[in-house]
Amino acid sequence: MALMMSTDGGEEMMKCVSCKEEYEAEDAGTCRECYEEASETEEELKREIEELKSKINFLRFWTPHRSTTPCFTDVLLLPVDADSGKPLPNSVPVPANKAVLASRSPVFKAMLETEMEESLSGTIRLSDVSYDALRAFVNYLYTAEACLDDDMACNLLILADKYEVKHLKTYCEKFLISKLIWESSLISYSFAHQHNAHNLLDAALSLILDNMDKLSKREEYMELVEKDPRLLVEIYEAYLSKQTNTAAAATTTSGG
Amino acid sequence: MALMMSTDGGEEMMKCVSCKEEYEAEDAGTCRECYEEASETEEELKREIEELKSKINFLRFWTPHRSTTPCFTDVLLLPVDADSGKPLPNSVPVPANKAVLASRSPVFKAMLETEMEESLSGTIRLSDVSYDALRAFVNYLYTAEACLDDDMACNLLILADKYEVKHLKTYCEKFLISKLIWESSLISYSFAHQHNAHNLLDAALSLILDNMDKLSKREEYMELVEKDPRLLVEIYEAYLSKQTNTAAAATTTSGG
Repeated sequence: MALMMSTDGGEEMMKCVSCKEEYEAEDAGTCRECYEEASETEEELKREIEELKSKINFLRFWTPHRSTTPCFTDVLLLPVDADSGKPLPNSVPVPANKAVLASRSPVFKAMLETEMEESLSGTIRLSDVSYDALRAFVNYLYTAEACLDDDMACNLLILADKYEVKHLKTYCEKFLISKLIWESSLISYSFAHQHNAHNLLDAALSLILDNMDKLSKREEYMELVEKDPRLLVEIYEAYLSKQTNTAAAATTTSGG
Repeated sequence: MALMMSTDGGEEMMKCVSCKEEYEAEDAGTCRECYEEASETEEELKREIEELKSKINFLRFWTPHRSTTPCFTDVLLLPVDADSGKPLPNSVPVPANKAVLASRSPVFKAMLETEMEESLSGTIRLSDVSYDALRAFVNYLYTAEACLDDDMACNLLILADKYEVKHLKTYCEKFLISKLIWESSLISYSFAHQHNAHNLLDAALSLILDNMDKLSKREEYMELVEKDPRLLVEIYEAYLSKQTNTAAAATTTSGG
């Protein structure tokens, strides 16, 4: 039962069943019944989380390139130089399972199911990827886990876009969005555009639109004018559309 | 802000921010701040659940025997008659991936890693298992999902015990515990004993101990006296130990 206490002023004080602090009637939250229901719900949600985590542990694989025992791998992934086609220095082929690659990526699936070079040779050659990024990429396909910093998140997002691994793409986008600041928003916007990262694109655009007065003074802006002015046109279009919407909303409010 | 209302009696009534019903001070639960914190926590937990579910979907495989496209399988599972060693009628070999079997079951791992018959022939022969149970078992190894009824839960628990797939064992035990009734508790107890299902064993035992007066009248009891009297001895030992504990607790309470 909630405690009621008479203060000197004669007003009734109650004691919160959760934080145990006293409060007055005007700071009241829920009744006892709703508090108890909410506590039960929280317990249930926590139990569900534990069950889901245990399912994830069950479904997760050991990663072949980190394991010391044989893992029945049947394909190799090799990072190669884009120009010469030769393996990158200090890299070794990353072993994997066709079944895992095909299950996670429709691009790998198509590659391996048809009689393409990759399927016949048992080696998939990937250009424009570092050895470290490739290993982290394969690791993610087996475990749904990656240790990210800015660079790695960008590298993995590029691979996720190329090989259509949606889950990894979302994961990298979330990380990059959490790190977004105005100073890097134009670069992020351009990067997101290039690799079809729509969530990152929206977040970067929103930050740019909030700082339009400073936009044209930035070095990256000058570079974009030269290299990819269409991107800037899209930003200006979004700005104009936002202004029109804001004006329309203001009119509706004042008019209504 | 919480509403306070003056009733006819002059006592203050409050309105619950959750159910919107009025309540008196003595039925008060939390203060406003704690209510808001709890709501936020609930939202966070729900978001976490969504993320975990999406991770599970990513890690889950298509099941080879249900897929119409090739899945790079490299091993066959064949249900055979325990006596003759011949394949069961109306069954076909169930295709699978060594990597998946070895990742989910230490028994399969040992079988496949060493130069045993299974590893060399690419076929694992399983006796004492129906074709349907085998397919459901393999399906679980790929997806962490199974559609259970009483029979299937027992069959999968036996396989989970034999091949040391802990996650599946727990899953089947939970299902069987949820279906436990006094009438079946002795059979369940004996079954759990045979297949090392400790959670089910404890739950069945607890139900038996609550109904000791009716125990010796049951048909299954007579059968156990003949077939496996040690199980009954264990039940009686547990009963005695429970009685002793209850008596000791009562003494402590009345003595203290």
